[in-house]
This record gives sequence, C-alpha cells and structure tokens, in this order.
Amino acid sequence: MAECTGVDSITLPPEIFHNLDNTKRFAIDIGGSLTKLAYFSTFQFNVVNICSSDHTTKVMPLETHGDKLYQIAVQENVTTRLHLIKFENAYLETCLDLIKDHLVSPEMKVIRVTGGGTHKFKDLIEKKLGLKMDIEDEVTCLTKGCNFVLRNIPHEAFVYSKHADPEFKFQNIQPDIFPYLLVNIGTGGSIVKVESEDKFECIGGSSISGRTFWGLGALLTKTKSFDELLQLASKGQHTNLDLQVKDIYGGPCGSFRGDLIANCFGKSATADEEFSKEDIATSLLHMISSNTAHLARLYAKLHNLPRVYFGGFFIRQHPVTMHTITDNIQYFTKDTVQPFFLRHEGYLGAIGAFLKGAEKDSKKEIY
Amino acid sequence: MAECTGVDSITLPPEIFHNLDNTKRFAIDIGGSLTKLAYFSTFQFNVVNICSSDHTTKVMPLETHGDKLYQIAVQENVTTRLHLIKFENAYLETCLDLIKDHLVSPEMKVIRVTGGGTHKFKDLIEKKLGLKMDIEDEVTCLTKGCNFVLRNIPHEAFVYSKHADPEFKFQNIQPDIFPYLLVNIGTGGSIVKVESEDKFECIGGSSISGRTFWGLGALLTKTKSFDELLQLASKGQHTNLDLQVKDIYGGPCGSFRGDLIANCFGKSATADEEFSKEDIATSLLHMISSNTAHLARLYAKLHNLPRVYFGGFFIRQHPVTMHTITDNIQYFTKDTVQPFFLRHEGYLGAIGAFLKGAEKDSKKEIY
Repeated sequence: MAECTGVDSITLPPEIFHNLDNTKRFAIDIGGSLTKLAYFSTFQFNVVNICSSDHTTKVMPLETHGDKLYQIAVQENVTTRLHLIKFENAYLETCLDLIKDHLVSPEMKVIRVTGGGTHKFKDLIEKKLGLKMDIEDEVTCLTKGCNFVLRNIPHEAFVYSKHADPEFKFQNIQPDIFPYLLVNIGTGGSIVKVESEDKFECIGGSSISGRTFWGLGALLTKTKSFDELLQLASKGQHTNLDLQVKDIYGGPCGSFRGDLIANCFGKSATADEEFSKEDIATSLLHMISSNTAHLARLYAKLHNLPRVYFGGFFIRQHPVTMHTITDNIQYFTKDTVQPFFLRHEGYLGAIGAFLKGAEKDSKKEIY
Repeated sequence: MAECTGVDSITLPPEIFHNLDNTKRFAIDIGGSLTKLAYFSTFQFNVVNICSSDHTTKVMPLETHGDKLYQIAVQENVTTRLHLIKFENAYLETCLDLIKDHLVSPEMKVIRVTGGGTHKFKDLIEKKLGLKMDIEDEVTCLTKGCNFVLRNIPHEAFVYSKHADPEFKFQNIQPDIFPYLLVNIGTGGSIVKVESEDKFECIGGSSISGRTFWGLGALLTKTKSFDELLQLASKGQHTNLDLQVKDIYGGPCGSFRGDLIANCFGKSATADEEFSKEDIATSLLHMISSNTAHLARLYAKLHNLPRVYFGGFFIRQHPVTMHTITDNIQYFTKDTVQPFFLRHEGYLGAIGAFLKGAEKDSKKEIY
C-alpha cells in the first residue's frame, strides 16, 4: 500500500512563468525520510483533493489522511500553479510510477533531482524512469526555493505567537530579504547563511533533528509513525519529565525565568513511576526544538544575521515546536533575532530544483 | 545504605596555604545530582582509601566501588592536602553526618555552600548542622575553582587523543591562563566566559547535559545508575543506531567526513529489530557529547576564545565522551579552538567555595 503523506500547491505569479510552455516540468527532492515532488503542468490528475483549506489566506493544519493509494490536489487554474506532493521514501516506487505515467514525456532525457537521498536511490530511479539524473546541489536548491517563496508567495513567512490572536503574524513580502539564516530541519539539519541570490554558504548543521525525534521517539514509545509521535506530543506535559529552573531554584534564577527547562528528562533519572507516552513525546519535542533554537540563535549571532527562517518537515507547524523555538530565540536574544516559519517549509529543495531546471531549460543547457 | 560515589584529594602548594591554621575548614557544592565536599584538615579519617592511583602522575580511572558505608581517602601528609568527596544527593544526610561528626567545630556559625541544589536542601542542612548557610554564587565558585586548579595543580588540564600514546597530553601550568571558556557539564550545563580573575560571566547553558543522559538512558535501557549507563556506553556501537554521513552519501560529503554523525538515532526510526542496551547507551552518549561540543565551539567562536576547559561530573574521563568532544571541536574549528579536560572536573565549585570561605575567614568577615 503506497502512502502519500501530503499535498500542496502554490499560485505562481504569472510574470514568473510567462515564458514556460506547456511542457511537463517537474523536479524531486529526496530527503532522508521523505521524497518531495514539485510539478507544473497543464493537465489535472483525476483524484481526490485533500487540500481543503485556502492556502492563500490560512496556514495549512497538520495533515490527516487515510490509507488512500495517493491523493493529489486538483486545481482549477493549473497553468499558474506549482503542485507539491510528498511521499515517505518507503513508497518511492509509487512516486516514480506516478511520475512515469503522468510527467515523463518522450523527449525528456534527464530528471532533476536534489537532496541527501539522491545517492541511495540513483540506480532505482534511473532504471525505473529510463532517464539520467541531473543532480542539483542541495544547498543551492534549498536557498533558491527559500528566496523564491519569500519573494513571491503572499504570507509565506510568519511569526508564531502563542498569545496573539490570530496565532500567526504573517510577514509581508519583503523587497529586500537578505541577509538571513535558513535553518532547514528535516531528517538532518542544515544551517545556511544567505547573503544574496548568488552568495550563500552552508555554515553548520544539527545531528539532533527530525529523524532523531522519530528514532528516539520510536524507541521510547514503541510508536513507529512520525505523525503519531507528533500527535502524542500535542497531548503531554513536558514538565512531568523535564527539570525546570523553578524546580531547582524555587523560582527564577538571575535572568533565567522559572519556567525555562534547566534539564531535559531530568526527572526520569531517579523516578520510580512510569511516564506516559504523551509526556515522553512532548519532552522529546521540547528537547529537539529548544536545541535547534539554541544552535540557530548562536549561528545567527556569530554571523550577525537578524532573521532566521525555519524550513523542513520536522516543523509541521506543530504548536509545541513553533512556540519552543520562538520563545527560546526571542527571549535569549532579547528580540534582536527574529524567528520566522514558512508555509511551504518542507518543499524548499523541491521548488529550488524545479526552478533550477526551468532555468537550464530556458538556456537549452540540456534539451 | 549510604553511598559515596568517589573521593579524591589534591596536593596544595605550601605557599598557598601557609597562612591557614589548623582550623577545620570545608565547603560543599550541592549540584542537581551530586554533593561535593572539599575539606582541609590536620586529622585523618580512619577509613579505607579507594584512591589507588597516584593523582599527581596519572589520570584517575573511572571509579569502581562496592556498597561500603562511605570511603574516604587517607593521606599521609594531610596538612598540605585538600580532600574531595562526592555523594549522590540521595545520601546527603550521610554526608551531613560526616560533616557534623568530623568537621563542624563549636565556634563555627556558618557553612559555606554553593551549587544549584542549595535552595532545595537549605532547611535540612541548617537544621541538621545547626549552622546558617553562607551561600556563594555558583558561577563565581566554578570560575575560582577552575582558575585555582589550572594555576596550581600540575598536569590538571589535558588534551585527549585517541591515537596518541599516552592517550592524555597534559598541559603544563600556564602562567597566563586567560581568556578561556569553561563548559561545566553536570546535571545541567553552564557555559562561562572567563577573562580574568575578577571578570567572568555566565554566557549560556545547555539543557541537554549529564542528567539528560541519565534520565533518557533510564527510560531507554531500564538501567537506573549513571555509572552503569556509562559502562554500557563503553561496550556498544553507536553506528548501529546513528546515521553517518557515509550512510547517506556513500562516503564523505563536501568537507564532511563520512564517519561524522548526520543524524543521531536515525536508524531506529524505521527499523524492525531490537537494539541492545549497550548500543543505545553509546548513541546517547555520542549525542550528548557531540551536542555539548557543538555549543562549546559556537560560544568559543562567538566570544573569540581559543581554549575550552570541560568540567563537571558528566565527563568522568569517559573515552567516548572525551573523544567525541575533542574530535568535534578540533575538526570543525580546524584546530583554532582547543578543548581541554580537567582531572578534578567535578570539584571546581566545591574548591571555589572552599577558597572563597578561606578568603572571608582571613578577612574575618564572618568569624
């Protein structure tokens, strides 16, 4: 049974793609856990649309879906939309079937691919599709995708606020987006300093990232699904396991608020009781989110960058994750570094690879 | 059953304490998990000496001990030695009995105390000993203790090398030790920038630290003892659980060596097999050690500090911890930041509180 874990699409400003003909165009980003497909096409897939929300006005909620074979967004005005689909890598062959049946045309010779999983699946992809891989640099694609959505998608970036109503404060499209720090947390974590369209550099990473949540969560709770782990983490109390500053000092300590975590999982060291799966998953999500924020703000300070954009499918617009990251960065930098989240968080690499391919096509580099 | 988890002592240069009379002097550092006692005295405790190694020439191995009530080092030349003992906080009352029976004198009015556990145990300590607490600032004591051992204890600091023979390269006593970064990892983590004897500042911390290893380790392996978890972590293979760069890219990726961890616990996300306690504990120790190193090198770079000293009883001179920290810092900073470990790693706060008390006594501030 194949599983598509989510679909989305973005409206492309007509001027951006006025020179694109009706050629089927697509690119894939193969991460350590998920494969993301970006395609632009004039035809419609005749399947169920599970994108119920209007993405131009509302942030997409965490996706829920059944075990349908795969589901793809139907859009009325396909000529101006870029479709985005993600699959777990375990179902990569189904993704390739979809690509072969609907997107590969006889004149194609290459498939545009990026991401850390490229190496692992090279033989499978080339054999199955009968195309050579044109591998695009991962950091280049991430950056290109991020620049594109920031410049072109209304309300792409937002600040999360636990207390505000609405919870999301959207950033308007910025004419001057540089410089910024991009922290992309998927299976692994990539930290990229972006100074201009052409000047960017991977300055770090984090080995405690999305797949650590999944891997440690699976060991701790016997729950094997990433989405189920995230759901557990919505229901627990991290303070049952974490030692807060006030647990140690009876209240605040110097400039440290009493509710800050002094020590992740500190209470389970000597406790005799059992802890619930929900509490454990919540503590784990706090641990990884606050550590990601800690690294992000240190890199931002080290490189004097006032804004951090968080991408990657670890985030999933989970309130615990977004609140923990936002609070940590705003509090410890005294609001001198501003964290933003992205509506198309996990698709930056796929969008970048698609754009890179379109650029190459327009220069007839390959065709 | 009371448990003393380790003893140690240091030879004090005679000129340092030539003005100390035979008054019983001591201070305690109550951490989140361990209480450390530093005392200087002319009498000997008549108990078993488990310090078998000569600390002036050899790094103390991981301590092993039975379930004796408590064990204290016997030293021949006690007038020039400072004794150091640690107890788990669960046995704090035994520690206080020892203090009351042997160290409290009728003329004493206060007990010198530092550490994060001071607040929690204040009532117990004051009631049991009949003394008021004189609470010394934690960061001041850590820094004072670190400055003292670096300046006065031969071969206190060393660089760990997996490949060298011997494994420890000792640093000679440095006449000019400043500036440096002190990363103290006990229950929690404190990161202190030290510019001079009087100019120092806590610039950060880490909530993924010693008690996280203990707390997560207990949940994952059902092993409740910190020392047993460390022993498990000596026997496992972290590569059974961690995704390395070469697992993803088939070899190195750009400047990243193939053996670097791309993702902690990445392999347990989708695996069906069971993992051994040893492998899990080893991955956990790698995760916490490499993250500690990551934070340490970012803080060192942010504040332009060329040396980092690691203290606190998380380290315990464990080869996995020391190798992981050393390799991470040396590799990613291209040797521009040098990590050092300390032989009296966990006693810095207690030594600092002892010295602070001796200073106050000499000024008759309290007596």
